[in-house]
Amino acid sequence: MSKKYLIVGGVAGGASTAARLRRLSEEDEIIMFERDPHVSFSNCCLPYHLSGTVKKAESLVLMHPDKFLAQYNIDARVNNEVIAIDRVKKEVTVKKTLTGEEYTENYDKLILSPGAKAIVPPIKGIEGIKVFTVRNVVDIDKLNKSVKAMGITNISVIGGGFIGVEVAENLKEAGHNVTLIEALPHIMKPFDYDMAQILHKEMYDKGVNLIVGNKVSAFEEDTVVLESGKKIEAEAVVMAIGVAPETSLAVKAGLEIGETGSIKVDQNYRTSDKDIYAVGDAIEVYHALAGKTVRLPLAGPAQKQARQVADHIHGRVVRNTGFIGSSIVKCFDYNAASVGLNEEMIKALKLDINYEVAKVIPGDKVGLMPGCEPLHFKLIFQVPTGKVLGAQAIGRGNVDKRVDVIATAIKFGATVDDLRDLELCYAPPFGTAKDVVNFAGYVATNLLHGEFKQVREKDIRDLVKKGACIIDVREKKEYELSHIIGAKNIPLSEIRQRINEIPKDEPVYLQCRSAQRSYNALMALKHLGYENVYNVSGGFMGISFYEYFNDVTTGREKIVTDYNFR
Amino acid sequence: MSKKYLIVGGVAGGASTAARLRRLSEEDEIIMFERDPHVSFSNCCLPYHLSGTVKKAESLVLMHPDKFLAQYNIDARVNNEVIAIDRVKKEVTVKKTLTGEEYTENYDKLILSPGAKAIVPPIKGIEGIKVFTVRNVVDIDKLNKSVKAMGITNISVIGGGFIGVEVAENLKEAGHNVTLIEALPHIMKPFDYDMAQILHKEMYDKGVNLIVGNKVSAFEEDTVVLESGKKIEAEAVVMAIGVAPETSLAVKAGLEIGETGSIKVDQNYRTSDKDIYAVGDAIEVYHALAGKTVRLPLAGPAQKQARQVADHIHGRVVRNTGFIGSSIVKCFDYNAASVGLNEEMIKALKLDINYEVAKVIPGDKVGLMPGCEPLHFKLIFQVPTGKVLGAQAIGRGNVDKRVDVIATAIKFGATVDDLRDLELCYAPPFGTAKDVVNFAGYVATNLLHGEFKQVREKDIRDLVKKGACIIDVREKKEYELSHIIGAKNIPLSEIRQRINEIPKDEPVYLQCRSAQRSYNALMALKHLGYENVYNVSGGFMGISFYEYFNDVTTGREKIVTDYNFR
Repeated sequence: MSKKYLIVGGVAGGASTAARLRRLSEEDEIIMFERDPHVSFSNCCLPYHLSGTVKKAESLVLMHPDKFLAQYNIDARVNNEVIAIDRVKKEVTVKKTLTGEEYTENYDKLILSPGAKAIVPPIKGIEGIKVFTVRNVVDIDKLNKSVKAMGITNISVIGGGFIGVEVAENLKEAGHNVTLIEALPHIMKPFDYDMAQILHKEMYDKGVNLIVGNKVSAFEEDTVVLESGKKIEAEAVVMAIGVAPETSLAVKAGLEIGETGSIKVDQNYRTSDKDIYAVGDAIEVYHALAGKTVRLPLAGPAQKQARQVADHIHGRVVRNTGFIGSSIVKCFDYNAASVGLNEEMIKALKLDINYEVAKVIPGDKVGLMPGCEPLHFKLIFQVPTGKVLGAQAIGRGNVDKRVDVIATAIKFGATVDDLRDLELCYAPPFGTAKDVVNFAGYVATNLLHGEFKQVREKDIRDLVKKGACIIDVREKKEYELSHIIGAKNIPLSEIRQRINEIPKDEPVYLQCRSAQRSYNALMALKHLGYENVYNVSGGFMGISFYEYFNDVTTGREKIVTDYNFR
Repeated sequence: MSKKYLIVGGVAGGASTAARLRRLSEEDEIIMFERDPHVSFSNCCLPYHLSGTVKKAESLVLMHPDKFLAQYNIDARVNNEVIAIDRVKKEVTVKKTLTGEEYTENYDKLILSPGAKAIVPPIKGIEGIKVFTVRNVVDIDKLNKSVKAMGITNISVIGGGFIGVEVAENLKEAGHNVTLIEALPHIMKPFDYDMAQILHKEMYDKGVNLIVGNKVSAFEEDTVVLESGKKIEAEAVVMAIGVAPETSLAVKAGLEIGETGSIKVDQNYRTSDKDIYAVGDAIEVYHALAGKTVRLPLAGPAQKQARQVADHIHGRVVRNTGFIGSSIVKCFDYNAASVGLNEEMIKALKLDINYEVAKVIPGDKVGLMPGCEPLHFKLIFQVPTGKVLGAQAIGRGNVDKRVDVIATAIKFGATVDDLRDLELCYAPPFGTAKDVVNFAGYVATNLLHGEFKQVREKDIRDLVKKGACIIDVREKKEYELSHIIGAKNIPLSEIRQRINEIPKDEPVYLQCRSAQRSYNALMALKHLGYENVYNVSGGFMGISFYEYFNDVTTGREKIVTDYNFR
């Protein structure tokens, strides 16, 4: 007997569920309700319309209702908002948003894919300014047309998450003066503070007025007022401080809401009502590494949930392995990808995990090849098991490849030894014989097995202040170009002859460009009886990136004579 | 007590072993012998000197003996050839290649990393022509200078493996008329015939005179004569038909040689003599998927072997997980990566494996993004286990990412269900929410579970000849542009209304652009009672690539009205 399936929300999760339901049955009735004028649009591409990368707003809509009907026999109803669910009668009330007319539809199964809405806090003066959000095609079209029509010069983007960063970049590319304001100490939560500094630098270098650690306290005419008292000229403001799950319909229907404030679902994405499923940004999911339920508003997971819901409805056994939060963002010339847990998440989620960090900054291909660029790669692994917990990669090149490899390895419970042994594709235009991931695996296993100790970039400022013994093992000409103030230069090639210049009675911090030569120096010293030697993680390049943005924007005292980013 | 380690060969494997040995001990004596004038050069970059991508031949040398001594206290002796091993005395005889002088050095452990040599068969007339090989910096410098000095226009490259393809490309980029001659039916053995056609097309389109399935029978003055009788003008010839392991020293020393003709080693890369190890292109390795010993002359594995040898010498337990042959090559605008087994290897190695193939050709990023290109992805998996056996990916974009993900998954014994569930990084400039790998996983699981049947590109010509019922479900305007001769056009959007035009009493072959829409059509027909329906793997795009090169070079009858490669 044919069934009737209703779907609330016609973007990623909803449209995918509908299409999969159709492939599994030709006879069932499938209706998809979307309160906005478009189904199946490319949510993630919205910001790229602002720079003209995606020229026409219309092309953001991937599929119109007529095509859903013709190709899939799916009844996609735009401008139709589901406003109530009667769980006893198994019936929804739908409101036609253009006419206000209401009607009901009954269901065998109901799938909720309402997504999330942009958070717009009631900041003082907000009613007097032009505020935009970026949730759908209508929003982005409005933002794009408005800033052009009004000849707006200065725009403030509030919030440095995915949308904020992408909107800031694309508005900047379109020629506006862009200020990006982030209340936290750094943008892009998937990254730790140290890695985010690379993005801060890129934003700054590309002319975005980036302000971090500062909240908006009020809006005045064409002005954003920050808590610090600072005022920013802005004829328009884009609110991108975050999204909140669209739970109102679920709450009204009495469906259970989870601890994160999102719709609670079971292992099959079923809500507390067995005939109602939910997918996408409105639900909370199990984070396989955190061992906790989290919100994870990402398109990839929504796709997988959608398929699994359709499969489960059709009686198939589905496998829920949890999620690990693989994500990536482009930030001008840089690509930044991450997966799993980062240091700040471990702290914020109060996870009782002992971990260590391996950071490497090798070239992303053979140095002789055109376009070889440093790739900043940070690996987080559990101690003492060596289990891979997460990775962050930022660079101008192929960072997604390395993080996708880690994401794959994590799915199989990989340890750092496994990363070391991975056999990856190599030819000079694509990588190195010992890939970034292998290299990080080597450093991590060495750390895990206690073969060497390290200090992190964050520790260096204090060490410099304390007058610690920092030895720069780069060649003399590299040292002369720029170095840590107070560091002594003993090139690796002279370290054995000049061993008497290295004190044995105090900690010695070895540093080179990217921590590779200093590691070789450290191993030599260790074998020569030095017990208190540390490798400076990230090397001079790491320190340069770590210090740069704060130095130039706050005018604080520098700990290097000059920076060196290569 | 300090030990003395001798290493034969100073490139990838040898130099890496030496460096690792030093890191594990400061006091041991380490001597590295290299018969050629350079140690530690970038073997894989050699071809890129021909196009000027790597401008100076000298820069191909990554590290000179003086630096090995200063930085690592390693005695690297170039122009020193080890010519004999006395296993009883544990002593080698070394010949200084410049003076002919001989001397001996004793060892505690000896490591052989002699590499492989280019095969130059005794073809009739070879002594009368200018023959070059590409094994080291001296070779490539000579080739480069010679073709320039002699003002050579026509060059034939013989052999379409990695070196042949890279040399052909770089010579073409340098402005020469290049003929690439391959005796087998297609170039690049890591790929199957169907995938290699994409590279054939690219070679042809870029103006390389590619000849496949034709052997060289003789050389005449400035001419290469093929077995077919065809004559090719060539003032110079590059021999790249393959490499043979450098086993002469090992054979002379009575070390065991394996079935493949390479040096036989145990799980710790030890030869039949417990004090002699061997690594790199001269040894044979265990192929984890074939379950057999094979030759695998690749840089990545050599690196890993080198490290493991040093570790084993120092009493560490090492883990040998075998190798899977991840590799990649650039071919003009295309990148081509592969891992694991391909169909032809399964046949050639006589493996008793039942397998199936899933081929997808999605965009490598969101279609709206600039630079979105089709990515041809072929996944091979075992039936009935679903175990992933191999993958081949060719496209203009990030193919290495997808194959590295598969390489990682294979290391963990992944099945196609695992690929489906992988959570990979997504943002529009980098991929799609359902990545190529996920997509291939979906198709593969559907095939594995018998949800649909397919025919392959190679079957289409016969089907066309037989007048089989091929239904093209693309839109009318796509069909009108180009289609399979004899295919009937019923767009997916009309398939339900025009169901009576589709016969139930004979096999029906459904085809669209890339096999996605035809899959949807197939599922609808299946639910409507059609039992004998097949999806055409690769779709019209796959067929266009499959047929093109042979059509244009042999002038055979076309089975399409025109090609469509996008």
